[in-house]
Order: sequence, then structure tokens, then C-alpha cells
Amino acid sequence: MQDLLNEIAEAMAAETERGKVADYIPELAHVDPKQFAISLATVKGERYSAGCATTPFSIQSISKVFTLTIALGKMGDALWSNVGREPSGDPFNSIVQLEHEGGKPRNPFINAGAIAVVDAIMMGHEPKETLAELLSFVRYIADDESICFDHVVAASEMAHRDRNASLAHFMKAFGRLRHDVDKILGTYFHQCAIAMSCEQLAHAGLFLASDGVNQPSNIRVVSPQRARRINSLMMMCGHYDASGEFAFRVGLPGKSGVGGGILAIAPGQGSIAVWSPGLDDYGNSLLGTKALEMFVQRTGWSVFGH
Amino acid sequence: MQDLLNEIAEAMAAETERGKVADYIPELAHVDPKQFAISLATVKGERYSAGCATTPFSIQSISKVFTLTIALGKMGDALWSNVGREPSGDPFNSIVQLEHEGGKPRNPFINAGAIAVVDAIMMGHEPKETLAELLSFVRYIADDESICFDHVVAASEMAHRDRNASLAHFMKAFGRLRHDVDKILGTYFHQCAIAMSCEQLAHAGLFLASDGVNQPSNIRVVSPQRARRINSLMMMCGHYDASGEFAFRVGLPGKSGVGGGILAIAPGQGSIAVWSPGLDDYGNSLLGTKALEMFVQRTGWSVFGH
Amino acid sequence: MQDLLNEIAEAMAAETERGKVADYIPELAHVDPKQFAISLATVKGERYSAGCATTPFSIQSISKVFTLTIALGKMGDALWSNVGREPSGDPFNSIVQLEHEGGKPRNPFINAGAIAVVDAIMMGHEPKETLAELLSFVRYIADDESICFDHVVAASEMAHRDRNASLAHFMKAFGRLRHDVDKILGTYFHQCAIAMSCEQLAHAGLFLASDGVNQPSNIRVVSPQRARRINSLMMMCGHYDASGEFAFRVGLPGKSGVGGGILAIAPGQGSIAVWSPGLDDYGNSLLGTKALEMFVQRTGWSVFGH
Amino acid sequence: MQDLLNEIAEAMAAETERGKVADYIPELAHVDPKQFAISLATVKGERYSAGCATTPFSIQSISKVFTLTIALGKMGDALWSNVGREPSGDPFNSIVQLEHEGGKPRNPFINAGAIAVVDAIMMGHEPKETLAELLSFVRYIADDESICFDHVVAASEMAHRDRNASLAHFMKAFGRLRHDVDKILGTYFHQCAIAMSCEQLAHAGLFLASDGVNQPSNIRVVSPQRARRINSLMMMCGHYDASGEFAFRVGLPGKSGVGGGILAIAPGQGSIAVWSPGLDDYGNSLLGTKALEMFVQRTGWSVFGH
Repeated sequence: MQDLLNEIAEAMAAETERGKVADYIPELAHVDPKQFAISLATVKGERYSAGCATTPFSIQSISKVFTLTIALGKMGDALWSNVGREPSGDPFNSIVQLEHEGGKPRNPFINAGAIAVVDAIMMGHEPKETLAELLSFVRYIADDESICFDHVVAASEMAHRDRNASLAHFMKAFGRLRHDVDKILGTYFHQCAIAMSCEQLAHAGLFLASDGVNQPSNIRVVSPQRARRINSLMMMCGHYDASGEFAFRVGLPGKSGVGGGILAIAPGQGSIAVWSPGLDDYGNSLLGTKALEMFVQRTGWSVFGH
Repeated sequence: MQDLLNEIAEAMAAETERGKVADYIPELAHVDPKQFAISLATVKGERYSAGCATTPFSIQSISKVFTLTIALGKMGDALWSNVGREPSGDPFNSIVQLEHEGGKPRNPFINAGAIAVVDAIMMGHEPKETLAELLSFVRYIADDESICFDHVVAASEMAHRDRNASLAHFMKAFGRLRHDVDKILGTYFHQCAIAMSCEQLAHAGLFLASDGVNQPSNIRVVSPQRARRINSLMMMCGHYDASGEFAFRVGLPGKSGVGGGILAIAPGQGSIAVWSPGLDDYGNSLLGTKALEMFVQRTGWSVFGH
Repeated sequence: MQDLLNEIAEAMAAETERGKVADYIPELAHVDPKQFAISLATVKGERYSAGCATTPFSIQSISKVFTLTIALGKMGDALWSNVGREPSGDPFNSIVQLEHEGGKPRNPFINAGAIAVVDAIMMGHEPKETLAELLSFVRYIADDESICFDHVVAASEMAHRDRNASLAHFMKAFGRLRHDVDKILGTYFHQCAIAMSCEQLAHAGLFLASDGVNQPSNIRVVSPQRARRINSLMMMCGHYDASGEFAFRVGLPGKSGVGGGILAIAPGQGSIAVWSPGLDDYGNSLLGTKALEMFVQRTGWSVFGH
Repeated sequence: MQDLLNEIAEAMAAETERGKVADYIPELAHVDPKQFAISLATVKGERYSAGCATTPFSIQSISKVFTLTIALGKMGDALWSNVGREPSGDPFNSIVQLEHEGGKPRNPFINAGAIAVVDAIMMGHEPKETLAELLSFVRYIADDESICFDHVVAASEMAHRDRNASLAHFMKAFGRLRHDVDKILGTYFHQCAIAMSCEQLAHAGLFLASDGVNQPSNIRVVSPQRARRINSLMMMCGHYDASGEFAFRVGLPGKSGVGGGILAIAPGQGSIAVWSPGLDDYGNSLLGTKALEMFVQRTGWSVFGH
């Protein structure tokens, strides 16, 4: 397996078409596009990595998997009254769907849905408290106390918040949010600004590959049913408007972030984190997707058959 | 396994809320809503059934899986120049998406996409020839020469073709179709009017669970990669606007038809066909979905974890 | 007044940017873009013309004013149950609005609405009879028995009918049309293929400028209220997606056609027809609009003030 | 003329179906729905009124006519780079159109467009300064120094700003606004909270009926061309999604407000203000529209013919 990861990392290093780094905030725009990392954590407790797998990057939307997990823990199925669970058929930040469907976002992974999930877990608390709880959870499932928010990224996102502020005010106008919009957004942008390495991320996602049980600690994070359901949402909605493409090419539940990371889950096998900052036209890591495609072809871990 | 299917059939027989039978054509409206059937064909060659599993019903949109398979065999990836592979986020017969995206349907399972697939496989031939080829293929993979079109259903669909005619003319206006609209629609409606029983359907779908190899004949129908890809499309787009819901609750690639049938694929395990004519609000079999949910909970065959 | 028209014709002859001739059918694509004509018929019975004002051209959508007049004569306000009277905010052939509003077209001048008006006036008759009635009406209001359909244009439109066929089938799927789609379209394309000169067209439109009374015959065509209402529809919806622009620049009720003609009404003053085949980006005559703008600036005939 | 207004006021007093008072803020919800007023200011300097024509009400969106006039005075046609001039085909607060057209609002009278106009006239100044300028202009054209903002209404609108905040942030995300969103909205809500009586409003609008010259002061407010253009925008877009209906029934340029007022312009004749708080389904004054319809039928002042 280590050989395979090395081989993938070498193949990716040789790629000349690397996509376009996100440039809507300067902090992401300045990341070196040549970087690549891949880490695998297996349900048997093995760990493999290649590339700069200990370099932290901004996990951005991958964090939505973790806040969704927390929200389901707190509210269970009541969450679904304000958030749907269908693919959106629109870009990640579209507001058209919201207007047509009474301010209810299609799923928890488009921006509007993730903002609604943040509102759901705040439960009257201040951003600071909610963020402390979130960070504590991520550190716990990654078994690493060094994980932190990148406050500079969070502040920059807040300064460029107009599109997301528009989504939030729109949902609030329909009574879908209970907290102050700026507090929700402050929390949301910090959540997205969690910095993690591929090693940490693969470890953090392992409970989803292992029927809800963290490894090697063997502590249950969620029920098997909830792990399956989160995986189904990652499969259907994890890559925005290109979720079908990811399912077609990779065949694993996955969640991408605009920082260039992707977390993919092979149920019963392991959790794979990849990172390469250059994005394709849909905002997903170009080489990250290629690497996962190669990985699945070689391991036969697609959920759709060997 | 037989006990499980019996148990499911009994549970479904006891259900009082059975959904609403499709009524847009009289031939479907008159089907007895009390019927239920389930069949399983495993990759090991086992066969199990419960309920009226030898009663033929109109497979309707489930047929789109078979024409897609034929189209990919004829054209390979060239098919994707005129059909996408993303969930649509819209009802099965929406034309809005077509206008916004230059007449290119989102995926091969919404009506517009299926019509484009029919156009692709016609290749200049007459409807009669195309239909002979399709029937021959379905009989082959189901290993049953008795499978037929229900010409009465097909004629009734043709008489009520306006919505689909609108989709077809719209695509043709964008140069997406090469054949005469009425000939394409005549072919399309016959395809949807194939009558099959659950036993036949489970058998016909088995190659998708078995890496592309039909069982027990052991003859390859498609490559393993193509089987995975068709499965991914069934997962992402097989239940129209409620594909996310099916993935969330059942966790298998599946394709539903408005006749009340669903074909679900458990890769590496088997192919499951269910039938109950009553539909939910999204046009998918209400009890068929419930039966599959129960089946997967008991077998642990979800692709998203045990 | 004759001096003004001459001046306008000279100014237009000097223009180098003449727009783009419609090219979706060969018959329109081959029209010489250098042609220009303007005719004025006043309520006092005066006639003025400049340019090639006796050359017939395809009036296309301008004909919708005449069929609307006939339809209101036959059905009165009952027409409005299947056709709205609001600007559409969309291009002339958009189907998006139809899907969102149950197949009811926004107004009688977008294609879908004009098709619904044709269906309304057919009243169970064959296309031939409906067309005879229409031609008879147009000859009557233009006081010219030489006006004819251009059957070559009509046949070519029919051969390229897909977009309009899509609209018609869509409306029929919602029960908005009563006749056979191909018969409705055959009638519709002949209506659009009426060939008239600017002189004929200005005369034909005069009743709308004269409170519903044709001049100089002094025969009432419609009531004063109906004349006002038709004018209001021309103002609000007569130039598709650019109706606001026409109101802003010209300030008269007007109806354009893709053949390059525009009929404009100055209530209480007269009826103006212009023709220049080159179109702007919205499908309206580029120089025709410019000529009308110049005409109104000089005459002070804008309905919005001197 | 006084007899006619009395007659109209009596007819409206006898109406039992009075529409529904706006209830999205308590200050508007508590207005007595039985009130009715009508005032006419003619270009010859005559003044007529009936009903409670000196009672101030919240002019709301009617104010957009005045800020548009100021904006055109400051920027001329440069305004149109960030605001269109076409009817929207959507409700007043729709965000769908904004997403489809790059954040550029269709016209200055839908909410998004009016917010963009406010941003345009702020020119780096504080809300207080902009509002002082606006109030000064309205007092000047109404020749009445007693006109004021209703700060309670403005504060209540600000507290319920989510829908408009969503529109504003959306436009800002596309670079269409230059000022702070909350400052723009604070200004916008004060503008809408101007309280005027029908007498004041009819006087204020008179310059639009009089080729841009205020009466009886005989001082030019705008050029004749600009007066015509503002009138054209009122005609095309002044009643949101029901502008076509108003043109069809009344036939005058007009602008309605959710407070129940309507300002209508009869070019060359006079300016008419009506007020009745009950609204129809589109948010326009039910009896105000009826009263104007009756007024135009009797005076023959429709711009579309006698």
C-alpha cells in the first residue's frame, strides 16, 4: 500500500495541468500550487502517507462533515426540517434554489445548508463556545490536540462574506435561522478555516469507514446507521455540482474543500485524505480527484464494484 | 434469505398506506395497488422470491438502465457529449434545466436524457429495428425469451406524449437529436412499455452486481469499470428528485419506474427487484422503497457500511 | 412631414452598423440588409412614405397584433384565461416561464402566447379556414386585396419548427391547447409569413391610433377601450425582452417582427411602419428602432410627453 | 373635475372588498383600511381632491421615482451600467433574476434596483447627508416644508430587513454596490418611510406630467426627455409583477407603494395621487387602482387613446 501511495504521489508530481488555486481571498490565493499529499488510515489501524502529508491546509468545506456529525448528535432527524438531503443541481452558492423552495437549502453541504447546520448547533450559545465545541470534537476524532483555526483565513472570509451573507439573510427572512446572521457567519468561517494535514484528516474521517467507531481507540462516535447516512450525503452532495462526476470517476463518498483537500471514505476499508491546492472548474481539487481515481482503480475499493 | 423475503412480503401486505398508482394513462391507472413482489438474484447463482414475483408489470423507467448499457456499448464515452451525468435537482420531466444548459439533459435517467439515449442508439435505423435489438438484449440478460413489449401501454403513452414531445423538440432545436421526433418517441415509449416480472428483472440486473458478468452464464456483458459507472449513475440519478432520499434510506444504486418497480444493485452480492404499484409524491414506489430499506437493514448490504 | 421621413430615410441610408439579418431560415437570411422603408398613415387620412415602402417583407410577429384583435373579437376577455398580459422578462421563445406558471404564457406576443391565440381562434376549424379569415381581415384593414401569405417562408418555418413545437406540446400537456399541434403550428407559421409593405402595414394599424376606427373608411374595427388595451399590450410586451428599452427610447406602443419590421402606434396621431432587415441582439430591427426614435424626437408624439 | 373626484371617492367608500393591508411590519399593519383619498394637480395649476387627501401615509416604493430622478441628475446615463430598465417578470423581491444576470437588477423600481439607486446617490456620503438631500428635493417639488420621514416605520423596516439585506449583499458580492450594506439599507428604508398626503404627492409628481417643469413655480426639474423616460419606466415597471395589468386597465405611467398609495402621470394633463391601504395579491392598492381606472375612463386621459 505504501508503494501505491508513493506511486500516486510521483504521478501527481509529474502532472503539468494542476488547476487554479482559489483566489477569492488572498490567504488561499498565495498557497503554493505544487504541493500534493495523500494519507490513508485503515480500519485495521494502519497508516500510510506520501507527499507533504503533515503540512496543514485550510480544510474549508470538508469541515461540513464534522459539523453535520455534531448537529445530528444534538438534534437527530429534527435537523432535516430546515435542511434537505438532495443534490442541488446548482453551484455551491446558488440562491435560486432557496427562492424556489421557501428558503430551505437542498442539503447540508452547499453553503446555505452548512450555514443552517451551524445555526442549528449554536443553540443560543456564543460563537466562541460553539467553536470550542467543534474544535474539541475534531481534535478528539483526529486524536491530535494541535489542530487549530487559522484566524487570518477566517477574518479574510468574513471580510468577503457578501455572497454567504446574502444566503444567510435570505434563509433568515424565511424563518430558517434563529441566531444573528453575523454571529452565524463568524462561526461558519472559523469552522471552514480549520487547518489540518492529510494525516490528521484521514484519521478524523476514519469513524465513517468503520461503522461509526473511531480507530484505533475503538470508541463509538456515531451509530452504524448514522455513519452510513453521512456517507450517503457525501456521495450525493459532497462535490457540489460535480458530485455525479466524482461518483462516476472515483466511486467513493467524498467531501471536497476549496482549499484543495478531499476526504474520501471507503466503507469497511479506510479513510483517505488528499490535498492539492489547484481546483477544477467546479471548485474541486484537480489532482486530488485524479489521485483518488488512481487509488480506487488500483485498490478496487469503489463502492460500486471491484 | 428466503425467510427474510417472506417476512418483508408479509410486512408489506400489512401496510395500509400504499401510495397512489400512476394515473396519467389508463393502462397504469387500472393496476391493482395491493400487489407486491420481491426477487433476489445473487452473484453465486441463488434465486429467492416472495409475493407475486412472476407477474409481469410495466418496467417503465427501469428500462433506461438497459438502453444506457446498449448505448455505452455502441458509442462509449461519446455518449456523454449529448447527455450529462449529474443529478438534476428537478422533477423527471422538467424543461427548465434544458433551457439553461443548451438543451443538454443532465443525466440519462431523466426523461430528456433517456430520449437522447434512444436517439443515440437508433443510428439511422427504424424504430422496429432498434426495438428488436433492445428486446433481444433484455431477453438475453434475463435469460428469458418470453419478455415482450406491452403495445397497449406504448400506444397509450404515445397518445399522451405532449410533455415528452416538448422535451424532444426542445433538444432537437438545439441539435441534440438526429432522428425524427415521433420515431424517437415511439421507440422510447415501447422501451418503457417492456413488461417484466420481478424474477426476470432481478436476473436481468445481475451483471451490474457481478462486475459486468451475467450469472450463472458467466458471460461478460460489460467491463467491470462500465458496471461500476452505471451503478454510480443509478445511485446519483436513479430516483429523480428523490435520489438523495433513496441513497439515505436504502444505500444501494437503484432505478425506479412509474409502474411501481425498482431495480437495486448490491455490488458483489446480488440484484434485487421489487414491485408495488403505489407511488410516493416523487413518483417512486412507496412500498418498494420500504421493502428495500428493510432488506438492506437486515442484510447489511448498503454500499455505505454495514 | 414628408421632409422628415425623407430626412430619416437618408440618415438611415448613411448608417454603417445595420445589425444582423435573421438567419434561422434561409428565406429570411437572403434578404438584402441595405433596405429601409418608413410609412406614416395619420388619423386625418394623410399618407407619407420614404424608402422602399411598397416592397413587401415578412411581417412575422407583427401579425400577432392582428390575430390578437381577431381573438378578442371572437372571445372577448375569455381569451385571458389561457394567456396572460404581463411582460415576460425572458426571451421570446423561453420555456422556463411556462413551466413555472402551469403552461400559461405570459402574454399574447411571446411565441407561446401567440400560439395559444392561434389555437383560440381556430375554434375547431381547419388551418385553411382560419387562415382565410385572417387574410381577409388583414386585407380589409389595409384596404388592399393583394396581400398574401409567403408560402415558401411558411414551409421553411414549419421545417424548422422544433422550438415552437416544444412550446406548443408543453402547453398542450397542461391542457392549454385544444387543436392538433401541427395544425396550430401550420396556421401560426402562415400567419407569421404574411408579406406586407410598410405602406400596407401603416394603413392596417391605423385603427389602433384612431380609437378603433379604420381610416379613411371610418368603419369601426374595435371599441375604443379595446384599441387602448391592444396598444397597452404592444407597449408592455411588443419587443420581447427589450420592451422596456423601446418604451424608454421611442415611447410608443409597438410590435416588432424578426423580418425587420416594426409597427408603432401614436394614439390620436397615426400609425407608423418601418422596415430594415438587420436586427439587434434582442431580435428587433436595429435601424427601424433608430428611425422611430428620430421620428418621435422630431414629432413629439411620445405618449410619455412632448 | 371636482365632481368626478367626489363621485370616485363615494364609489370607493361603497366598496366592500378593500384588499389586505400590508402586515410585514406592525406600523403598516395598523393603518385603518377604510381610508381613501385622491388628488389631482393639473399642468394648468388647478388642484382637486376628495377623501382624506391631507392625511399623510407611508409612500414606500413611490419614493423610488424621486430617488431615480435625483440619481439621473447626478449621474445621467452612467446609472444604467448597474441597473437595467426592463420589466422583471418576477415579484418585487425576487433574487433569482439577480443570480441569472450577474447581480444587475432589472430596473430601478424592484427592490434590488432601488437599493442600487440609493447606493448610486450616496457618493461616499453618510446616510444622514443623503437623506437630507432627498428630503430637501421632495419638499421642493411638493412645495411643502412639512414633509418628513416616519422614523418609527424606518426603524421597523430595518429590524425586518433580511430579505432586502440578502438582495444587497448579493449585489455587493458582484461588485454592484460601493457602500456599506447597512448604511445603504438604513438610507433606503428612510426613503421608503417618507410620509406624504395625496395632495403633497400629486404636487410632487406634477413635473413628470409637465415635460419636466414644476408647476405653478414654472421651474425646470428635469429635461423633457428625462421626464418622458422616467414616465416610461413607471409604465413598464411601476407595479412590479402587475405592471402589464395596470397598463391594461389604467393606461397611465404609475408607481405604487405597499403603503397603499399610487402616483399616476397623465402627460400634458396632470399628476394624480390615490391612496387606499388595502392591497391586491401583487401588493398594489386595490381601490387605488380601481379609482384610477374609473378616473381614466371618465377623463379619457389614457396614453393609449381616448
